[in-house]
Amino acid sequence: MQMSVAEIEAFLAREFPQISEGGDFVLEEVGPMSAKLRLRYHERHLRPGGTISGPSMFALADVGLYLAILAQIGPVALAVTTNLNINFLRLPEPRDLVAHCKLLKLGKRLAVGEASLISVGSEAVVAHATATYSIPPGAVT
Amino acid sequence: MQMSVAEIEAFLAREFPQISEGGDFVLEEVGPMSAKLRLRYHERHLRPGGTISGPSMFALADVGLYLAILAQIGPVALAVTTNLNINFLRLPEPRDLVAHCKLLKLGKRLAVGEASLISVGSEAVVAHATATYSIPPGAVT
Amino acid sequence: MQMSVAEIEAFLAREFPQISEGGDFVLEEVGPMSAKLRLRYHERHLRPGGTISGPSMFALADVGLYLAILAQIGPVALAVTTNLNINFLRLPEPRDLVAHCKLLKLGKRLAVGEASLISVGSEAVVAHATATYSIPPGAVT
Amino acid sequence: MQMSVAEIEAFLAREFPQISEGGDFVLEEVGPMSAKLRLRYHERHLRPGGTISGPSMFALADVGLYLAILAQIGPVALAVTTNLNINFLRLPEPRDLVAHCKLLKLGKRLAVGEASLISVGSEAVVAHATATYSIPPGAVT
Repeated sequence: MQMSVAEIEAFLAREFPQISEGGDFVLEEVGPMSAKLRLRYHERHLRPGGTISGPSMFALADVGLYLAILAQIGPVALAVTTNLNINFLRLPEPRDLVAHCKLLKLGKRLAVGEASLISVGSEAVVAHATATYSIPPGAVT
Repeated sequence: MQMSVAEIEAFLAREFPQISEGGDFVLEEVGPMSAKLRLRYHERHLRPGGTISGPSMFALADVGLYLAILAQIGPVALAVTTNLNINFLRLPEPRDLVAHCKLLKLGKRLAVGEASLISVGSEAVVAHATATYSIPPGAVT
Repeated sequence: MQMSVAEIEAFLAREFPQISEGGDFVLEEVGPMSAKLRLRYHERHLRPGGTISGPSMFALADVGLYLAILAQIGPVALAVTTNLNINFLRLPEPRDLVAHCKLLKLGKRLAVGEASLISVGSEAVVAHATATYSIPPGAVT
Repeated sequence: MQMSVAEIEAFLAREFPQISEGGDFVLEEVGPMSAKLRLRYHERHLRPGGTISGPSMFALADVGLYLAILAQIGPVALAVTTNLNINFLRLPEPRDLVAHCKLLKLGKRLAVGEASLISVGSEAVVAHATATYSIPPGAVT
């Protein structure tokens, strides 16, 4: 691994203030080919019916997998999402949601990972996503 | 078709103020098994690099297909997204984006549609999504 | 769980001789919300380059998840695949391939599962699929 | 475009006899960023219930899109499927099925396309797929 949680947080504050400053996302953990990202509950993530919105869940899975890649390849590179497939399984309760992210492949050109979104205090998977990222040339050797 | 553009707008203002009040989305057209929804360009949709963010494109495709279903089945029913697969093809320019939505199937239990997202003034497809919606019992007969 | 491996095999021999008689698929295990299905290596599954073909991997994931559902809901019902998304991660070697299938949701109308395809004797995931199945009315109560 | 229908057929007979010799697939047309591929009806494509099987439809979409890419970039290159997402919309009747394939993007590293599968003599889309292909370095300039 190339970056710790603290190094990723510093990188985000510098390069991606949109993600960092909102305070919506808290990076809980990075590990080999993995990351856990928490979406802090806030009214603006809600959709009609009081549950967390689809775009918020999409963003949580997407950012979580991006950070798992970043931890592996380091701050030199900008991976770009090329495909994301998400299944919405249960209506999430209005509380924090954690994406458990796992990279299935980290190649020279493409990375693929999956994210299971789980409401804090629960065990059931609320949504499950798989996504593909294009890796810039030279970032993975 | 069960609902016109004006009827859908009134329904949204009443039932989904989150969508309606922001003014981000403009329903341009509904037709048989189709809809066109515009995302008005705004700084808060941007992601690093100055292009429109993934979650904003996700939301545009998802809401557009939802409204295409609503136009067909009427205001009695609440369809729920069960799956959405999106391919990001080109970086969108910082301008309005229109989702051209087409329903491929409207069954009693499931609806499936596709959305092509195109920057205004361009012809290239910026992103392409397909999605499935669960239809409440009794809504389609 | 409603059915054991032996009961599923008897059901397949009676109802799905196409799956059963070929001898391509061996059901290794069923458990709560899970199944392991093996694709026996055979030349006719190959594609150019000597690796196992995409359609064979698609079928392995799809049949494996179908059997995981069958084990849970019993022989009364015919679940139908409505969506399957598959990521091909590595070229599989010319040997047996096992789908590790897990149901993420088993609802009254829809079941969703994921399958990780792993070459026997290896640990790397060769392909990963998620799929949705429509459940006939009355099968899950 | 780099290759005609006849040139592609000759290439397949030489390089992919598995596709070519079976006689299952008939390339009906290639055009700019597009192709039409027909699956000839045969008993061995059936699944229980007498409809065309999922793996056969998967293969039709995948091969059709592969040939659309081949027509554009020429015979030097071997594109590899990295992701395929397919929605099954209606049970296909036991007759020929045609994949109408369209490339949405042909980049230097990735190509993305969609395929609508339609029963001959009908208008309804039986299945719809989108897929991503990895393009070998140097094939698209």
